[in-house]
Amino acid sequence: MRALVLSEAGARVVDRPPPERGPGEALVRVRLAGVCDTDLQLARGYMGFTGIPGHEVVGEVVDADTRSWVGQRVVADINAGCGTCDDCLTALGHHCEKRSVLGILNRSGAFAELLTIPERCLVSVPDAVPDERAVFAEPLAAALHVLDEAPTTNARAIVIGDGKLGLLVANALANGGLRTTLVGHHRHKLALARSVETFLEADAPGLRAELVVEATGSAAGLARALALVSPKGTVVLKTTVAAKIEIDLAPLVVNEVRLIGSRCGDLRRAIDVLARGGVDPTPLVEARYPLERADEAIAHAGRRGALKVLVTNESTA
Amino acid sequence: MRALVLSEAGARVVDRPPPERGPGEALVRVRLAGVCDTDLQLARGYMGFTGIPGHEVVGEVVDADTRSWVGQRVVADINAGCGTCDDCLTALGHHCEKRSVLGILNRSGAFAELLTIPERCLVSVPDAVPDERAVFAEPLAAALHVLDEAPTTNARAIVIGDGKLGLLVANALANGGLRTTLVGHHRHKLALARSVETFLEADAPGLRAELVVEATGSAAGLARALALVSPKGTVVLKTTVAAKIEIDLAPLVVNEVRLIGSRCGDLRRAIDVLARGGVDPTPLVEARYPLERADEAIAHAGRRGALKVLVTNESTA
Repeated sequence: MRALVLSEAGARVVDRPPPERGPGEALVRVRLAGVCDTDLQLARGYMGFTGIPGHEVVGEVVDADTRSWVGQRVVADINAGCGTCDDCLTALGHHCEKRSVLGILNRSGAFAELLTIPERCLVSVPDAVPDERAVFAEPLAAALHVLDEAPTTNARAIVIGDGKLGLLVANALANGGLRTTLVGHHRHKLALARSVETFLEADAPGLRAELVVEATGSAAGLARALALVSPKGTVVLKTTVAAKIEIDLAPLVVNEVRLIGSRCGDLRRAIDVLARGGVDPTPLVEARYPLERADEAIAHAGRRGALKVLVTNESTA
Repeated sequence: MRALVLSEAGARVVDRPPPERGPGEALVRVRLAGVCDTDLQLARGYMGFTGIPGHEVVGEVVDADTRSWVGQRVVADINAGCGTCDDCLTALGHHCEKRSVLGILNRSGAFAELLTIPERCLVSVPDAVPDERAVFAEPLAAALHVLDEAPTTNARAIVIGDGKLGLLVANALANGGLRTTLVGHHRHKLALARSVETFLEADAPGLRAELVVEATGSAAGLARALALVSPKGTVVLKTTVAAKIEIDLAPLVVNEVRLIGSRCGDLRRAIDVLARGGVDPTPLVEARYPLERADEAIAHAGRRGALKVLVTNESTA
């Protein structure tokens, strides 16, 4: 099969043997995959990753131990836990010490014709959710996960950063009932937020909120977040920056702020929101590339200010 | 009266007019005051402070609107809120935007013969608590405040740093029922911890806890805390470092850790613990200086590895 492979030689589309599914795994044919900033970081050497990246995916099950999965359209929790530890048994296994992570850690990802996914990670996609929405299930789940940190159900929230992640988070918070403000640098991106108050950074008035989400991935964004959050409020850090940042944490102590790292969410919750039309992520799509040109998709996604780039698997058609 | 004054000329003991109490304030004669690392930072220019520092104090009320205060031995909440805002009415006013802070912000402190304190900040000291314990009420309150972040009442906790703050926090957590480990660099300081498992940093085995307290004030300490905390666990940042630090926050996001700034606590709670003998802070006392030599007390406290230095007001006797 064709697949995008990251190696010391860079990102290249090459031939790879199709994956063989193990016990409890499903073989999934990719329909559509999304490029995440984490993929860009992996391409730059984050976590020493080599192999096939890609963890935002909608596909079709072609083989599985549980025959009822076969033929179903699915998305997947990217964290494949051991299934037996406390975290796997009592939570989603996102912190299982033995987990593999789709396209990120010890598991080949979705920029390929086929991939294998543990059956317990699969979430069925209803007909009402087309591929171009379902492919956002993973980042939307992460965005919805931020709601879990809101102090009250109608709290005031500020999202810093109008990139694809910030937009998704702002829309997810507004849909969840928070009074949400998005602050960014691009008028055309801010326009993609729904039911969200928006400000260009330069025009932002004196803002203050109990919940501030840092979605720029920069030290400046975090400093800004610490300045905007109310005393005893919460700053959610959404982006993993594979580098040290320089920051003055005195405001965190003086104002007794909670800085909370937030990573993956519940895929079922995301599919529910997509099925109800609560968030429409499709305006975030900026470009589509066939798998054969997935290297160009990565390059495009890496351009400053790029929104969502998708990779289509032509062999699906 | 004599007082230690911080100015551009440095820390000097000089003559100052005695303070005049305003309405609702008590005039308090200092009995004993403690030097905190924040005082050392103020002396180095933190917050642009000039005037009389000192916020760890036990004294005797010599005048007050409410006559029953007169003659009482007292400690004080250092945050003097406006008394009318939401934070003052529903909490302790520690985040009142109009607050003054004893010896730190817009209010003269305790390295003096006399000071004024709003009556509502006063906490009476029972006879069972001698001055040399009561003077620890403010830092002990801050240490006990960390307990509020414990996920369960018998959680496992690690305190990083065997300075006076780390020792006080470790003793406070152990007294509060947490299974507490203190990691430090000095065998003689670690020996001052009670009911606490201790390790020299170099000998520390593979540790992991749901609650980790960073009490070194260094970037290395914070990085160590992020490495020791369990996924979804809590790191409490106790010290305000008046400088930028360089830190990799990726572990915070990947492990969905909560980094929580923690400042002041409830003085009543501290006095209760001291009265019951739950924590004995007196072994932390390293030296005493009369007020006339308070500048030497500051210099002593600034020596690497110094524990608690106290300033006595000879005019009290």
